[in-house]
Amino acid sequence: MILQNISEPTFLLDKQKCLSNISMMAEKARKNNVGFRPHFKTHQSHEVGRWFRSFGVDKITVSSVKMAEYFANDGWKDITVAFPVNIHEKVRINRLAEKLILNLLVVSSEAVDQLGKEIQYPVNLFIEIDTGYHRTGIVPEDFPLLDAILNRINAYPHLSFSGFLTHDGHSYKIRNDKNAIHNICQHTLTISKTLKQKYSTEYPDLIFSLGDTPTCSVAETFNGVDEIRPGNFVFYDFTQVAIGSCTLEQLAVALACPVVATYPERNEIVVHGGAVHFSKDNLVLPGGATSFGKVVRLTNGGWSTEDTGMYIKSLSQEHGIIQADKNQVKNIKVGDWLGVLPVHSCLTADVMKGYRLLNGEAISMMR
Amino acid sequence: MILQNISEPTFLLDKQKCLSNISMMAEKARKNNVGFRPHFKTHQSHEVGRWFRSFGVDKITVSSVKMAEYFANDGWKDITVAFPVNIHEKVRINRLAEKLILNLLVVSSEAVDQLGKEIQYPVNLFIEIDTGYHRTGIVPEDFPLLDAILNRINAYPHLSFSGFLTHDGHSYKIRNDKNAIHNICQHTLTISKTLKQKYSTEYPDLIFSLGDTPTCSVAETFNGVDEIRPGNFVFYDFTQVAIGSCTLEQLAVALACPVVATYPERNEIVVHGGAVHFSKDNLVLPGGATSFGKVVRLTNGGWSTEDTGMYIKSLSQEHGIIQADKNQVKNIKVGDWLGVLPVHSCLTADVMKGYRLLNGEAISMMR
Repeated sequence: MILQNISEPTFLLDKQKCLSNISMMAEKARKNNVGFRPHFKTHQSHEVGRWFRSFGVDKITVSSVKMAEYFANDGWKDITVAFPVNIHEKVRINRLAEKLILNLLVVSSEAVDQLGKEIQYPVNLFIEIDTGYHRTGIVPEDFPLLDAILNRINAYPHLSFSGFLTHDGHSYKIRNDKNAIHNICQHTLTISKTLKQKYSTEYPDLIFSLGDTPTCSVAETFNGVDEIRPGNFVFYDFTQVAIGSCTLEQLAVALACPVVATYPERNEIVVHGGAVHFSKDNLVLPGGATSFGKVVRLTNGGWSTEDTGMYIKSLSQEHGIIQADKNQVKNIKVGDWLGVLPVHSCLTADVMKGYRLLNGEAISMMR
Repeated sequence: MILQNISEPTFLLDKQKCLSNISMMAEKARKNNVGFRPHFKTHQSHEVGRWFRSFGVDKITVSSVKMAEYFANDGWKDITVAFPVNIHEKVRINRLAEKLILNLLVVSSEAVDQLGKEIQYPVNLFIEIDTGYHRTGIVPEDFPLLDAILNRINAYPHLSFSGFLTHDGHSYKIRNDKNAIHNICQHTLTISKTLKQKYSTEYPDLIFSLGDTPTCSVAETFNGVDEIRPGNFVFYDFTQVAIGSCTLEQLAVALACPVVATYPERNEIVVHGGAVHFSKDNLVLPGGATSFGKVVRLTNGGWSTEDTGMYIKSLSQEHGIIQADKNQVKNIKVGDWLGVLPVHSCLTADVMKGYRLLNGEAISMMR
């Protein structure tokens, strides 16, 4: 049993669940005849990345040039950096573009000009379209701006226009409503249609690339989409359960935390497991309470998804305070282990910097 | 100028401001004739730790056994782990106790018994007292529990009782009110008096150790306190400014972030600088808006503390969205750099895993 071999907060990864998640999404892409370019920002791990290869994946998405370098070092040859170009990274971008198919994201003419003047090797550019999240991207009706950006791209021989890229991040605000997720997806497919009508004569090979785990998990068809880029689905998390993207059983990660104190008079249990282990994303529960993680029982085979009602109510740097009931506080002892399903597995992985498989094997990550 | 040598989000550390902060606190401890055992969980760096040595510091506080190991490897010989004992770390605790003065924290008789049975080398124990934060610790009136814990400590030859340790974490809820901070400190000093009256006959050398940056920054005297353990003061942060612990000029760290997009119609600027750079602590501003960091102008000598009014209104994994005004969005260009004063420097340091001094020198951290 894994708990005999760990001594501190440990990020458990259930490889079987993870492989099921990868398999499900790869199969959905295959059935729909759309490209599958998974986002690797969630796991940030060479080892987990290699698991995708057995499902035929040879193109990936990352969220920074640093992460592109990390995965290029493990042999990935076709990488999209799905974050607007930062020209100060020109030296590193050039080094990557020299050795692999590098796809970058632009949201302004200025960035295209900066890139055009500094890049010595062929680079493909996606224009990000803002489908309603209002983080980055061009609003789809702004044809003058899209035309201006395309003009600037065409001005530089090393730059090629690949297509339009979207991230329906507003789907993360949905709670337990698959219809609402479908509606967001449908809206984005309409945008795809409009953009293709306008631009596919001039750019017959243009790709419309759609990201985000909620829509990719819930939608069954993707008419007008050429590529999907979900990332979080590899592990899922408690937020995705709340959105309606997955079931609790699909969650592939849990943090094992040792109990260090119990407070019966407060109905609270304190574990070693704080902001440096979970990061600090939280979720408002249906009753109005704020949860920093759902507490589960660890078992011989991993963890039970049976509802304990316990959740992390607050986090400081190393402490996690769990809300429990009278019986739980009485029965759980200092030295016991509890599992915590993270609210946001991407950020938990980012701070934990490594995984432990249920067979005890350690898996490293980008540092 | 530092910006010519960086290409990605970079955690700038102004060494002069940092040394001033250390000097101020070391001098306050000296004047009050109390021990100074700074908490190193904020900087987590061998190099920054060495700066304390020139101020006579030879005893430190850390928040985990892992951190104790890291600083032991740089020659620190007297370390308090100010987090309740997790007995699963017994092998590592034994290894540390063999080679240095190790002070641990207990909050239950169970933990003392677990430790007593497993420890082969002398270890000093502090009992944590809950002065009102209600995270961990024994409520000071619970003499039966304190007596029970002391009895268990006395049952094991390798365990020695060192005294009582407090962390006035409730001081972090205060906003711009030095009197309120004084009141919390006074309350803790009263607790010290009561506990010493009760226990100093039997334990004449018992230490009362007080932590937290707000009270240590604001209080001028510490009657009844034998040791102070502030940590955050080494850098301070935007939360400490809001509490009233320090001025904006005392902040020793800022994150340099490149601008990657501007949205005049939304009055927003997007930088590369997200949850993986800042972590996700936030602060409610006086007007009710939520800030994930205060935006400042970078200068040749570091950064200006002049109020720009700009702040980070939301963070995703790599993106930071800055609320700005019309003129700012017009004048700030893609490719410019902005500085961000972190809401919580401990967590920002923990995710950034390294610093850059203003002379360009890189400083490493625990990994």
